[in-house]
Amino acid sequence: MLKVYGHLSSGNCYKVYLTLKQLHLPFQWISTDAVTKETRTPEFLAKNPNGKVPLLEIAPGQYLPESNAILHYLAENTPLCPTDRYHHAQVLQWMFFEQYSHEPYIATSRFVVRFLGAPEDRLPDLDRWVRPGYAALDIMNQHLEDNDFFVAGRYSIADIALFAYTHVAEEGGFDLSRFAAINAWIQRVQQQPDHVAMAW
Amino acid sequence: MLKVYGHLSSGNCYKVYLTLKQLHLPFQWISTDAVTKETRTPEFLAKNPNGKVPLLEIAPGQYLPESNAILHYLAENTPLCPTDRYHHAQVLQWMFFEQYSHEPYIATSRFVVRFLGAPEDRLPDLDRWVRPGYAALDIMNQHLEDNDFFVAGRYSIADIALFAYTHVAEEGGFDLSRFAAINAWIQRVQQQPDHVAMAW
Repeated sequence: MLKVYGHLSSGNCYKVYLTLKQLHLPFQWISTDAVTKETRTPEFLAKNPNGKVPLLEIAPGQYLPESNAILHYLAENTPLCPTDRYHHAQVLQWMFFEQYSHEPYIATSRFVVRFLGAPEDRLPDLDRWVRPGYAALDIMNQHLEDNDFFVAGRYSIADIALFAYTHVAEEGGFDLSRFAAINAWIQRVQQQPDHVAMAW
Repeated sequence: MLKVYGHLSSGNCYKVYLTLKQLHLPFQWISTDAVTKETRTPEFLAKNPNGKVPLLEIAPGQYLPESNAILHYLAENTPLCPTDRYHHAQVLQWMFFEQYSHEPYIATSRFVVRFLGAPEDRLPDLDRWVRPGYAALDIMNQHLEDNDFFVAGRYSIADIALFAYTHVAEEGGFDLSRFAAINAWIQRVQQQPDHVAMAW
């Protein structure tokens, strides 16, 4: 059975949880919390030298880190990942966008505010992340003004990857009220069959 | 014919150039320089709202941004991308590692030092990037101590993605001399058929 090391307070882990649920794949969830440094123990670093969750264990000793690589692994050849060559490429495009232009500002702001309590020595970080975070939201909103979902007009792992931290962006201080197209898309994602909330 | 918008001083663009050369794909290169803001014109933003290069034009008006999504699009079903499901996932794993844990420290340091001349107001950035940059190099070196290439023992787009900024990391101030396995791998990559140097 698939095993996942992770913690549901992490959007990157929640992505994997939601994908597994929507694909009806059986799995064992092994609670592993980065906030309490459970990802930095020698035992965990032997599984993933990068010391991060989520981590998928496909078979005993066969590990796969990186949330969006896990999503692609799980969803390829399912309705959550288009097979058309260009659409498939666009799914990866938006997942790389998420990890490079979105997560480092929007997820990290939420982490510093919600889990670290916005300590004074991290306020310069929060300041630096405002502008690129809103830039990412602008790009998403612009795309969603003309598209119901990110790729090929239908729900895919690109939406799951971007939903995870976008729908809780306000926890990091980002005001979503001005992004009408994003809010409508959030509702569409939440209405997908077998959707599960990021609850803990 | 495929068109690529980009500039060969950018590692992200060089990745695409090297992949196209090694796959013997004909293409037209349209020099577009982020340093001189050619990626922020209205004309370019209409092609890629994220205002970044490289950008692949697959057919007139059909665009694909994100360097590693482009690499995957070009290389899928070629010897540069394994077809085995786990190996394929590992290629994506390392490409997401590159964009999240490597490029934001190693490529950005090179940009600030080499192209901006390390202005004083960017020195705090350079300082912040040292530790995570070396952490990424440590992870690569550890993996390469036991593996000739990143995935499945053979050269793939995972190597191309990581080679681009690693082999010029010293231009951003990272000392590669202590990473014997990385240096041996750099030589193996440079010895691949149809390798082209990052020259401009």
